[in-house]
Amino acid sequence: MSRKISMAVIRRLPKYHRYLRDLLEKDVNRISSKELSKIIGFTASQIRQDLNNFGGFGQQGYGYNVEELYKEISTILGLEEEYNTIIIGAGNLGQAIANYAGFRSSGFRIKALFDINPRLIGLKIRELEIFDIEDIKEYVTANNIKIAVICIPKDKVQSIANELADAGISGIWNFAPVDLELPEDVIVENVHLTESLFTLSYLLNEKKLGHELPEE
Amino acid sequence: MSRKISMAVIRRLPKYHRYLRDLLEKDVNRISSKELSKIIGFTASQIRQDLNNFGGFGQQGYGYNVEELYKEISTILGLEEEYNTIIIGAGNLGQAIANYAGFRSSGFRIKALFDINPRLIGLKIRELEIFDIEDIKEYVTANNIKIAVICIPKDKVQSIANELADAGISGIWNFAPVDLELPEDVIVENVHLTESLFTLSYLLNEKKLGHELPEE
Repeated sequence: MSRKISMAVIRRLPKYHRYLRDLLEKDVNRISSKELSKIIGFTASQIRQDLNNFGGFGQQGYGYNVEELYKEISTILGLEEEYNTIIIGAGNLGQAIANYAGFRSSGFRIKALFDINPRLIGLKIRELEIFDIEDIKEYVTANNIKIAVICIPKDKVQSIANELADAGISGIWNFAPVDLELPEDVIVENVHLTESLFTLSYLLNEKKLGHELPEE
Repeated sequence: MSRKISMAVIRRLPKYHRYLRDLLEKDVNRISSKELSKIIGFTASQIRQDLNNFGGFGQQGYGYNVEELYKEISTILGLEEEYNTIIIGAGNLGQAIANYAGFRSSGFRIKALFDINPRLIGLKIRELEIFDIEDIKEYVTANNIKIAVICIPKDKVQSIANELADAGISGIWNFAPVDLELPEDVIVENVHLTESLFTLSYLLNEKKLGHELPEE
């Protein structure tokens, strides 16, 4: 099987997953694309089109079985896979990520944190040891680490990412304000907080200036 | 003056801002759209088109004056405006945001944190007091608070957002996995971490299955 799905569709999948989980929690068993459209905010035809990319799942006149669709989307999202994960940077953000509930519902198993600060190295956060960032390449290789979450300031990010790539990392969840340049086989997903904050700032300013605001 | 810029353009502006700041730090005084294209990854025609939305700035045969363009984009992004800001949720994420460097370079002035946990209420984080979330509406009104950053679990988010809207908040930076329903004049910018993490999970799984990966 080969398929190529657009990033726009992919970025909607976690939202389907979240709304379907909410429906399951409310004991809703089945839902039409029209009803789903009302709560999720995409058009019914958009929903049918999105899900048809993966084989449909809906039945004419019945709609979607919520639990089945939830499970299918979980599988498509790869949430049943397990990935050994490390967090680079044991500051506030690194600690927030280490405690982050989203990890518990996905297959990312956090194994350790890394930091440059000698006062943090050797400490533990919730059973997770903080190691010296100097030892990162060796650790990644020895412990079959597949994912690294980067929560450090921008200056050393590219060189650390290079080491991670050399050590065979599969993916990076990058919170640093840097566009990493890495071999194509390393998957990078960025969370650029400043870009989000500045977008908010832009929209506030436009509103203040009396300009019409765009739709998302 | 009236203008309506698409969200796609708006979401590229912070990236221009970041790359121009890097150029300024490297003492680069002028740059052509072609050179800028090479480092930022958008096409030169995309860059000219984006910046023409705001009046151009470039000069034929000269390119862009880096400092001028940086200042113009700062102004467009509203970074010279000041907004009294509160953080709701004094856990790891709230603390990470309170210490977040992006705030220092923008006009968001954090005035206080709020939490539901009696063990946190009354404590201070970097000079910022943690207040009882029960008092939030009164505080927002009394202290001319314009922005709230939401860093609490999903359950109470909508009702707290309603209180914020009643108290006249202008904008919300929302980290909770909830799509808020609020009056149109409240600007909401979401950071859905789980959606980003699940996108990474999807791409890792697709790679594992040997499927072709999409381009962003």
